[in-house]
Amino acid sequence: MSAKLWAGRFSMGTDKAVEAFTSSILVDKRLYAHDIQGSIAHSKMMAKQGIIEEEEAELMEKGLLEVKADIENGSFVYDDALEDIHMHIESALTEKIGDTARKLHTGRSRNDQVALDTRLYLRDETRVVIDGLKTLRGVIVALAEKQFGVVMPGYTHLQRAQPVLFSHHMMAYYEMFSRDQERFEDALTRINVMPLGAAALAGTTYPIDRHYVAELLDFPKVSANSMDTVADRDFIMEFLSAASIAMVHFSRFSEELILWSASEYHFIEISDAFTTGSSIMPQKKNPDIPELVRGKAGRVIGSLMAIITQVKGLPMAYNRDLQEDKPPLFDGVDTLKAVIDIYVRMLPNIKVMADVTRLSTETGFLNATDLADYLATKGMPFREAHSVAGKAVAFALDKGVELGDLSADEMKGFSELIEPDIFDFLTTDAMVERRTSFGGTAPSRVRKAMDQAIADLGGRIS
Amino acid sequence: MSAKLWAGRFSMGTDKAVEAFTSSILVDKRLYAHDIQGSIAHSKMMAKQGIIEEEEAELMEKGLLEVKADIENGSFVYDDALEDIHMHIESALTEKIGDTARKLHTGRSRNDQVALDTRLYLRDETRVVIDGLKTLRGVIVALAEKQFGVVMPGYTHLQRAQPVLFSHHMMAYYEMFSRDQERFEDALTRINVMPLGAAALAGTTYPIDRHYVAELLDFPKVSANSMDTVADRDFIMEFLSAASIAMVHFSRFSEELILWSASEYHFIEISDAFTTGSSIMPQKKNPDIPELVRGKAGRVIGSLMAIITQVKGLPMAYNRDLQEDKPPLFDGVDTLKAVIDIYVRMLPNIKVMADVTRLSTETGFLNATDLADYLATKGMPFREAHSVAGKAVAFALDKGVELGDLSADEMKGFSELIEPDIFDFLTTDAMVERRTSFGGTAPSRVRKAMDQAIADLGGRIS
Amino acid sequence: MSAKLWAGRFSMGTDKAVEAFTSSILVDKRLYAHDIQGSIAHSKMMAKQGIIEEEEAELMEKGLLEVKADIENGSFVYDDALEDIHMHIESALTEKIGDTARKLHTGRSRNDQVALDTRLYLRDETRVVIDGLKTLRGVIVALAEKQFGVVMPGYTHLQRAQPVLFSHHMMAYYEMFSRDQERFEDALTRINVMPLGAAALAGTTYPIDRHYVAELLDFPKVSANSMDTVADRDFIMEFLSAASIAMVHFSRFSEELILWSASEYHFIEISDAFTTGSSIMPQKKNPDIPELVRGKAGRVIGSLMAIITQVKGLPMAYNRDLQEDKPPLFDGVDTLKAVIDIYVRMLPNIKVMADVTRLSTETGFLNATDLADYLATKGMPFREAHSVAGKAVAFALDKGVELGDLSADEMKGFSELIEPDIFDFLTTDAMVERRTSFGGTAPSRVRKAMDQAIADLGGRIS
Amino acid sequence: MSAKLWAGRFSMGTDKAVEAFTSSILVDKRLYAHDIQGSIAHSKMMAKQGIIEEEEAELMEKGLLEVKADIENGSFVYDDALEDIHMHIESALTEKIGDTARKLHTGRSRNDQVALDTRLYLRDETRVVIDGLKTLRGVIVALAEKQFGVVMPGYTHLQRAQPVLFSHHMMAYYEMFSRDQERFEDALTRINVMPLGAAALAGTTYPIDRHYVAELLDFPKVSANSMDTVADRDFIMEFLSAASIAMVHFSRFSEELILWSASEYHFIEISDAFTTGSSIMPQKKNPDIPELVRGKAGRVIGSLMAIITQVKGLPMAYNRDLQEDKPPLFDGVDTLKAVIDIYVRMLPNIKVMADVTRLSTETGFLNATDLADYLATKGMPFREAHSVAGKAVAFALDKGVELGDLSADEMKGFSELIEPDIFDFLTTDAMVERRTSFGGTAPSRVRKAMDQAIADLGGRIS
Repeated sequence: MSAKLWAGRFSMGTDKAVEAFTSSILVDKRLYAHDIQGSIAHSKMMAKQGIIEEEEAELMEKGLLEVKADIENGSFVYDDALEDIHMHIESALTEKIGDTARKLHTGRSRNDQVALDTRLYLRDETRVVIDGLKTLRGVIVALAEKQFGVVMPGYTHLQRAQPVLFSHHMMAYYEMFSRDQERFEDALTRINVMPLGAAALAGTTYPIDRHYVAELLDFPKVSANSMDTVADRDFIMEFLSAASIAMVHFSRFSEELILWSASEYHFIEISDAFTTGSSIMPQKKNPDIPELVRGKAGRVIGSLMAIITQVKGLPMAYNRDLQEDKPPLFDGVDTLKAVIDIYVRMLPNIKVMADVTRLSTETGFLNATDLADYLATKGMPFREAHSVAGKAVAFALDKGVELGDLSADEMKGFSELIEPDIFDFLTTDAMVERRTSFGGTAPSRVRKAMDQAIADLGGRIS
Repeated sequence: MSAKLWAGRFSMGTDKAVEAFTSSILVDKRLYAHDIQGSIAHSKMMAKQGIIEEEEAELMEKGLLEVKADIENGSFVYDDALEDIHMHIESALTEKIGDTARKLHTGRSRNDQVALDTRLYLRDETRVVIDGLKTLRGVIVALAEKQFGVVMPGYTHLQRAQPVLFSHHMMAYYEMFSRDQERFEDALTRINVMPLGAAALAGTTYPIDRHYVAELLDFPKVSANSMDTVADRDFIMEFLSAASIAMVHFSRFSEELILWSASEYHFIEISDAFTTGSSIMPQKKNPDIPELVRGKAGRVIGSLMAIITQVKGLPMAYNRDLQEDKPPLFDGVDTLKAVIDIYVRMLPNIKVMADVTRLSTETGFLNATDLADYLATKGMPFREAHSVAGKAVAFALDKGVELGDLSADEMKGFSELIEPDIFDFLTTDAMVERRTSFGGTAPSRVRKAMDQAIADLGGRIS
Repeated sequence: MSAKLWAGRFSMGTDKAVEAFTSSILVDKRLYAHDIQGSIAHSKMMAKQGIIEEEEAELMEKGLLEVKADIENGSFVYDDALEDIHMHIESALTEKIGDTARKLHTGRSRNDQVALDTRLYLRDETRVVIDGLKTLRGVIVALAEKQFGVVMPGYTHLQRAQPVLFSHHMMAYYEMFSRDQERFEDALTRINVMPLGAAALAGTTYPIDRHYVAELLDFPKVSANSMDTVADRDFIMEFLSAASIAMVHFSRFSEELILWSASEYHFIEISDAFTTGSSIMPQKKNPDIPELVRGKAGRVIGSLMAIITQVKGLPMAYNRDLQEDKPPLFDGVDTLKAVIDIYVRMLPNIKVMADVTRLSTETGFLNATDLADYLATKGMPFREAHSVAGKAVAFALDKGVELGDLSADEMKGFSELIEPDIFDFLTTDAMVERRTSFGGTAPSRVRKAMDQAIADLGGRIS
Repeated sequence: MSAKLWAGRFSMGTDKAVEAFTSSILVDKRLYAHDIQGSIAHSKMMAKQGIIEEEEAELMEKGLLEVKADIENGSFVYDDALEDIHMHIESALTEKIGDTARKLHTGRSRNDQVALDTRLYLRDETRVVIDGLKTLRGVIVALAEKQFGVVMPGYTHLQRAQPVLFSHHMMAYYEMFSRDQERFEDALTRINVMPLGAAALAGTTYPIDRHYVAELLDFPKVSANSMDTVADRDFIMEFLSAASIAMVHFSRFSEELILWSASEYHFIEISDAFTTGSSIMPQKKNPDIPELVRGKAGRVIGSLMAIITQVKGLPMAYNRDLQEDKPPLFDGVDTLKAVIDIYVRMLPNIKVMADVTRLSTETGFLNATDLADYLATKGMPFREAHSVAGKAVAFALDKGVELGDLSADEMKGFSELIEPDIFDFLTTDAMVERRTSFGGTAPSRVRKAMDQAIADLGGRIS
């Protein structure tokens, strides 16, 4: 069956190059299951509404499930001339059940059909992403709990700033991925809307029951305007926005894992199973996974820009440009899922070099702020205290030592307010423990944050 | 007071070119009111917690309000050497109230301070955007009600497809802007989080009460991880994503207004007040507003790309790159607000040429689908009916007439199922009225959709 | 042979999920021919330099050509565990020729090898693009010549502005694609640089002769800094920039073809072979090709954004992120080539409705500028003449006629300078013929422009 | 003079909000000098062609220069009602010289006028960028010469790979900025084209001499198609593409300066004049300049995305969307120039800690490749040599030492081919010196590369 289904008024055959150019079958064939799921629901609704006979609907369902089986067992044949997955399935159904198949497209159009398939697909994938992010959050909390007590330098401007708990640092990513999950949940409410029945653009004259289709397919909402329904791709833009933001978070996490794996830091070791070597340099143990993740961020961001640019400036309602939404969508979905999965696998295989991270908190004057705080607590205005601490740092730098290596007298030289208790005050542990403000790095605070996270997640990850 | 506040350990003056390069005062001075609002709340909290005296807090508030007045009456002097608005205000406060000012920065850092200012600013602006979109939706419904009954061609592929109500077409945009509003509301929950107290990155050792600051500033939530707090810019990315999607919608609406203003369509006339002329062609009445809006979509999308690229790959926590978030944010906010405002003003000034739009539904075979439906209703399988309708179209095209111009006999020639009632069946009004499926273009449906919209908006726009 | 070639120091097997995540074989296998081409040149150079024996080089070449044949006849087996095409080929070569194969990687690294393969690939593709654009320019000139004499409205702001030749309009695209071709030619000089011999990042200790490799592979230039060589991807960014700009041009051309195919314009008909129908609306003849092209512009632009984002902020030298450069590059190349090809095929199949386009020049006051020019030529200052012409337009609009329909007296009413010769002056043909300024739309000018184009192209397209 | 110059047929006043929305004066007023330069050339050409009198042209020039002086001395008054800089200047000219001013716009349109102004502006700025990049290349060579002999680790995957000369590393950036300069030079040939005389879109009926205008304004080329001329913005897209690629290079350089400033590396110290401190952490010396530069890369990339999106899908010829090209263009130009300037200033103020960089080459097995090369040179196939070197690294890692710390016997244990000369062979200096391949890091090679650079630049920077 190679005649075009819409060939009625056409007098010439379609050029082969045109077929190849316009065909989307290589891309959209992955929607087959959702297309069949949607068609079965459509046929059931038509039977319920008396548009077709019950037996016809049953025949359609049986035939569609056979087509699905054919696709899944590899016996299905694809053909560029059939353009897209929708035509392929309808054509195969016709071969199986004959003329009854030709009633399936009653009361619908490819415009709303492809909208339905894409929403069914993306609803499933968004749920996978949400589950994946939840698992990842559990993995992060587990890592934070496992490493609880480990101290490391906190950085701003990539300069050592103040000591923090490694767990606190991890919980920063917990927060980011929690917001990402929220964004996908919000997006899901706008993805999870039933479009079928918008037909080409104006609705249909058949006595369809769109709410029944929604019920069959478990959609909580039916789209309210037929033109908007076939023209809208903002559910894709929103998904790819959320995906891009999540990928930015992964790129930041990856950047840190790459830094920490560098011999200059040596804060962590990623298990051999998650690194690769060099074809020319035998000593290399490259953090390939985080590097690839960081690179993949660019791809998802590119996909977002692609879909935004495509839709910008299009008039109502459906335009064929919208066929090009699928390559960036699919690539974005696949990439994000793969990245979540690999992080869930990799994070438990990271070894933290606690001695190194602790040692690193003890050089670089990470206690300078606390010297200023010490003075301010004793009544010196903060800006003045900051200036005094700065002078102490400059003095110690000149001597080539840290603040803790200065003598009590040297210390007192900077301010009469400094007493010998300053030395205990300026240790890494003391500094970390004092940052008890809500959201701070004190172990007591971080413990509460982890407990809250475990409660939010409904328990620890198994 | 030109000495840098952090100059303690520095031995050289800062190069003037460096000052100019690093200074953000020209950009961030618009945050002054939010900076002062935040500082007053911070000082009140410090007094409540005993970190400073009540009188000191009162003095600070009085001084800060004087600074605010100075800024607003134009007597405030800006100086690149003071880098940013935070330093300007603190410096001016010191001049007004002396040493007490130097206690204001206790227990906070510029990192959390700028996060606070930006969130206060963006919370306000997001609310303005939400209100604006709500107003715009009201304006659209008003336009739909005003033009209720007007028919026009609905298009796919920019080809005339089926007749629709102009009101139905407008309500498509109502739906788009409703989703946009929802996205900003969702974004607002993640913007509306209180960051102060994260300090530089690790929290603070002062006995601050972050929840009290949140209460004073009316934040429903306090950020839970100090490192995330100062490093996070996803609330900006999310805002600009929502803004970009909204601008895509405006670009589509604008594209249509531009088309409809073309003499080939002449579906609408935009009031002279909203068009401009040509310096060389006196007859021109250019749809400048929609054109500019369409162009401005590119700017907002560019801003989204800018912020995403900036944050990608940054390690924790604050990095100076983040200072560059403000130009794209401010430009995105300003552009979106201006576009919403101009649309609210312009839409009521559009005159719809109902005769032209109706006439346009009567050529181009917009009733071909309905001929197929007519046949399918009488029992012909849809795909066959579609083919028959195609042949009728080809026949009429050859004769240079529309389907309605064919004789009853000619019609019957295509199928025995065609009766003379076909001619009433294929009129524009009949076609529109039959599309009663939920979300369809039938007047009864569109009336309900408008009623629902008015209910959702809490009434008609005044 | 499934052991990793770099497995020396690794104690654990690589996780399967990691293999799948890091493997690029599905993407980079298309580089096989260039990889083999590069390896043969490398082996010949090594033999010439005495690094290996002549016989070894011959054996390598023979083996590599067999591997190539295996790939091309489909007998080659791919395996995720072998990561990439380079490893696949080397592994297959080892199976064919044994230990000698293990000398092939002497004096090079995967870092410079992949740079070589990518440059060989992109050099070929850039030449294809350049040839394609040249062909396209020829096709455009042919169309311009074929339609020489056809007049149509020229538009600004999508408003009819002044009449132009259809050929002149086409020649605007000739100019755009000429610049695009230039940009690719400029890019080619920076693509066409020989990278092999940079090794991992620092050059090699073997006595290689990079200029000889360049000679064998016909590269006019050898890269001058080894670190830059393996880190550089700006040749890809530049290609995708040029591709994005070209796609912007195709999107503009497509927009116009879509508009002109609309029934409101009916300026052109695209041959049936290049349009498709509707599954629900039998009368539709959709301009799918231009719509898809316009949508594909978004994809190429997304690819540009992907690569730019990927490289931004990467330290020297090679980072694994760069593996992710290939999906956007390949997609960009494939898309651009397909678009050029389909345009070359489609343009000759466009029928111009010359009567319609001429008629369209006669309504909408396209002669208003010329009325102003008429007055200015007779001595009225241009700004005043413009104002007078505006008043005449307003008067005619009120009467519902065009300027040419006014009486000589009515005309004279606007200015004493207007004589009866005005009516001949304001015809479409007169207006077009008067625009003889260089680059203008007068037939004499356009004829010269087409002649120049034919000369530049070295003749008419056959 | 607040009446719109094109108000002839308009019956209503323009709404104030519309004026504000459509006005571009705040943005385009910076084009004033180029606008006046272009108008003077236009008037001279008109006089030469007899379109106006010589005295009129002289009066226009005198008046225009007075307007320019007014603008430059601050006495010029701006008014939103006058829309743009072109109207402002023409209006001011009319006040100065009366009716003669009203002849200035003869034979041109705002469409070609703004194209001219933008090209004049961008031609100047592109030359500034080219000069700036050339200066920067000189500064880089000077730094490379000053630090000649300093060794440091070369990295791939941010892992230490092989030792390189610091000068070699710098020369990698020399290469990048050389290509950037080439790209701007190529772009300049397409920017440097004279557009005036295209008029609104179709050319003009006046006997203008476009080549004479080009001669007066020193343009080597005149645009060949009037429609393309007013519609084209690819010269802006190309400039911003080149700018984005250059900013990617700056972002990479900045990333490295930031890393090297980190205490984990301490490879460099950026002079105090080019760093800033922390408001809360007195010890911090933040690499603000490179951080801001890295952030600014996002802004320029965003500008590129903005202009591409704006032009995508626009029909011929001029559309008002194009007014929005200026904010991204101006921001991109300003940002790039500022970044080049600050780098030229900052680089000479970087102190390289040669002892630290050398020490860093001596840990991390940077000599593993050379051990493999050593073996390969003695006849072992490279892949086997690579494996042996890998085992030696694993052995040394286990012992917690470097390869150079192993005994001769331990070494021999890995292969009989290893002789005691291995220890001299594996020193940093020996490794660097051996990489003499063209483009390699051997001092002799780098010396030649620097000499070549100095020759290409026409001498050392003073």
